[in-house]
Amino acid sequence: MSESTISPAAVVLPENPAALLPSEARALFRSGLVSPTSGWSAGYAQANLIIVPKAQAFDVLLFAQRNPKPCPILGVLDAGETTGALLAGGDVRTDVARYAVYVDGVKADEPTDISAYWRDDLVTFIVGCSFTFEAALQENGIRVAHIDQGVNVPMYRTSVRCEPAGSLAGPLVVSMRPVPASQVADAVRITSRYPAVHGAPVHVGNPAELGIADLARPDFGDAVDIPANHVPVFWACGVTPQAAVMESRPALAIGHAPGHMLITDARDSSYLVP
Amino acid sequence: MSESTISPAAVVLPENPAALLPSEARALFRSGLVSPTSGWSAGYAQANLIIVPKAQAFDVLLFAQRNPKPCPILGVLDAGETTGALLAGGDVRTDVARYAVYVDGVKADEPTDISAYWRDDLVTFIVGCSFTFEAALQENGIRVAHIDQGVNVPMYRTSVRCEPAGSLAGPLVVSMRPVPASQVADAVRITSRYPAVHGAPVHVGNPAELGIADLARPDFGDAVDIPANHVPVFWACGVTPQAAVMESRPALAIGHAPGHMLITDARDSSYLVP
Repeated sequence: MSESTISPAAVVLPENPAALLPSEARALFRSGLVSPTSGWSAGYAQANLIIVPKAQAFDVLLFAQRNPKPCPILGVLDAGETTGALLAGGDVRTDVARYAVYVDGVKADEPTDISAYWRDDLVTFIVGCSFTFEAALQENGIRVAHIDQGVNVPMYRTSVRCEPAGSLAGPLVVSMRPVPASQVADAVRITSRYPAVHGAPVHVGNPAELGIADLARPDFGDAVDIPANHVPVFWACGVTPQAAVMESRPALAIGHAPGHMLITDARDSSYLVP
Repeated sequence: MSESTISPAAVVLPENPAALLPSEARALFRSGLVSPTSGWSAGYAQANLIIVPKAQAFDVLLFAQRNPKPCPILGVLDAGETTGALLAGGDVRTDVARYAVYVDGVKADEPTDISAYWRDDLVTFIVGCSFTFEAALQENGIRVAHIDQGVNVPMYRTSVRCEPAGSLAGPLVVSMRPVPASQVADAVRITSRYPAVHGAPVHVGNPAELGIADLARPDFGDAVDIPANHVPVFWACGVTPQAAVMESRPALAIGHAPGHMLITDARDSSYLVP
């Protein structure tokens, strides 16, 4: 598939998104396709975005440094830069399927292209995503419910507070995957080897302790059916910076639409530790 | 030993610095004692300092994010803050044995107290230090030459360039420990479990490849005798941000004197990964 053959009219969901190269997936999104990206471009790391003016960039980077589980930074583009090593030949303004534009902390737009909002002082933070370790879970025989059920991963605002940084404060956001009780230890062991993409779960079991009243009503993404004898397992989620933006109300911030990630050229395996 | 009993006149090198609590060690330095800190307060993490005005803080934090091996951030104090969880009851202006004050990139002073230089816009970065894993090396039967020889660890500017960030660019600085050839693999294995304090070596063997002409003439610290059949092993060093300051010449920056670290209340073991 070459980029030149993709016209907006031809943008349909690919038959096998797992087989796409990251550059091919980004070209599809650039051409207007909208889809959650869990399971896309198998073997390549996906990422959250948070884009803010330079004046707020220190607070965002410090927030990430103080909250490394929800905000593991994979890369930072300098002010005004729209591409980088993680998306060679790509453009961070167009290559994500859908964005979320926050004005004064309120979601003002959900465009598929943020060129109209771009400014030369915008700094882009590329943040690790737990989709990265889903292939490792599957390879180890642990099914991923939202992939099996063909929906976006369920994400929840919790009652756990992040460590604040300057003007930024907010709750921890988590993603949830139901895991058979017999495989919870394996899921912990496998994901703990990926610290750059949220790593080990932050919580296993009781959602009430996280302030989650109803698993069937996620704050972002879609609910999944929880099979019998499965335990809800919660991982820190890269939507956390967006929740901080909603609470802290900077004049402008741009993120990805939850579940609609930047597909990077980095291999999942490059984030695997011994 | 209580802080109130320490007068400047009584400040002598303690008989057993390894046995001091971090708060006791910091009180000694606050009272004027000057000594390198390798081997002090066994079991507690030591740290590098880099202190810059808020206007330069994003560049420093981004430099650290892009160069995590030499610049693993353990904590950041907000602008004007002089204490924090890593040094409970302490004061970052007085609790390090000796500092290095850089004006326009040139070392202008090496005071034992930086109160006279303090400003409310100064942001303090606390950066991991390889002294943290030396106890683990020793416990595993690997001798640490500079401790045995009673000198400061040798550190070298290399020809390897760090990834620049905004106004900051500079060379990788490394510390060197000679390790018996039969124990190099163990030294790699043990230190790789401490990624927050420089982790695995960046280089084993040939110093010329790092641009180091003569191991007997370190750029910082002291030379050590290299016993027969020992291989020089190089770890990324937290003096790296100071080398970047010397090259990039910001108006003001303050670091610790190499080898004279901030002794924190964090346990070495808290930085150990599985």
